[in-house]
Amino acid sequence: MASQHDDNCIFCKIINGDIPCHKIYEDDRVLAFIDIGPISKGHTLIIPKYHAAEIVDVPEEYAAACGMAIPKIAKAVQGATGCPAYNILQNNGQLAGQAVFHVHFHIIPRYSAETGLNYKWIPGQLDETDAVEMKAAIANNLK
Amino acid sequence: MASQHDDNCIFCKIINGDIPCHKIYEDDRVLAFIDIGPISKGHTLIIPKYHAAEIVDVPEEYAAACGMAIPKIAKAVQGATGCPAYNILQNNGQLAGQAVFHVHFHIIPRYSAETGLNYKWIPGQLDETDAVEMKAAIANNLK
Repeated sequence: MASQHDDNCIFCKIINGDIPCHKIYEDDRVLAFIDIGPISKGHTLIIPKYHAAEIVDVPEEYAAACGMAIPKIAKAVQGATGCPAYNILQNNGQLAGQAVFHVHFHIIPRYSAETGLNYKWIPGQLDETDAVEMKAAIANNLK
Repeated sequence: MASQHDDNCIFCKIINGDIPCHKIYEDDRVLAFIDIGPISKGHTLIIPKYHAAEIVDVPEEYAAACGMAIPKIAKAVQGATGCPAYNILQNNGQLAGQAVFHVHFHIIPRYSAETGLNYKWIPGQLDETDAVEMKAAIANNLK
């Protein structure tokens, strides 16, 4: 199994046990713990045990493990907090709000319109010509 | 492989081909296509081919498939758009901003502070006693 570690990364230090955390779950590929800067009660993080700043650089086996951990941990957070709703958020790049440069999925309970992840959603309307071009461009980049 | 379908669900209709989409990627377990109400250029959705309103109800094999699809599709979106940053968002419950009640992961490119997912992040400070209680409560709910 591929593995990657960064001695200067705070999340790698947590994985190694050099910095403590309120651990909720751990297996060979992921670790889940309570966020120390919660934006709502029960705010939890899931991280791959592989150092990559962005999700695009996470190998398949760790990405799959994160995927499997999300429902499991979210269900436990839901059970513990009774939250009526919750967001899963994973930020890539400083401009997207990323603060720790080791991939992490936030599980953020939402109890009311004022708590948790408060975002503006201003949808556009997809232009048909743009869509066809964008589809081709993304598909080309899949190879 | 477990499978679940809802005849009244717009995303199930897209999976079945009854409603068209700008398809980017498809395998046995996931489908990716361009969002018709994009909040930024290249806004893309990944959905499991299994009808569940919330991520907590997605079976492991589909959750793993979504996890594996995220880096793959995000990399292609990044390649096609040149976006310097991007957010992955998955909303559960109306209160969390969910509008279509079939699990979907948004890949939302961010080009500037004004584009894409615009959210407020107001972190609290984790209280040690609360954290110990919360950790125990979540861990208990993992079983």
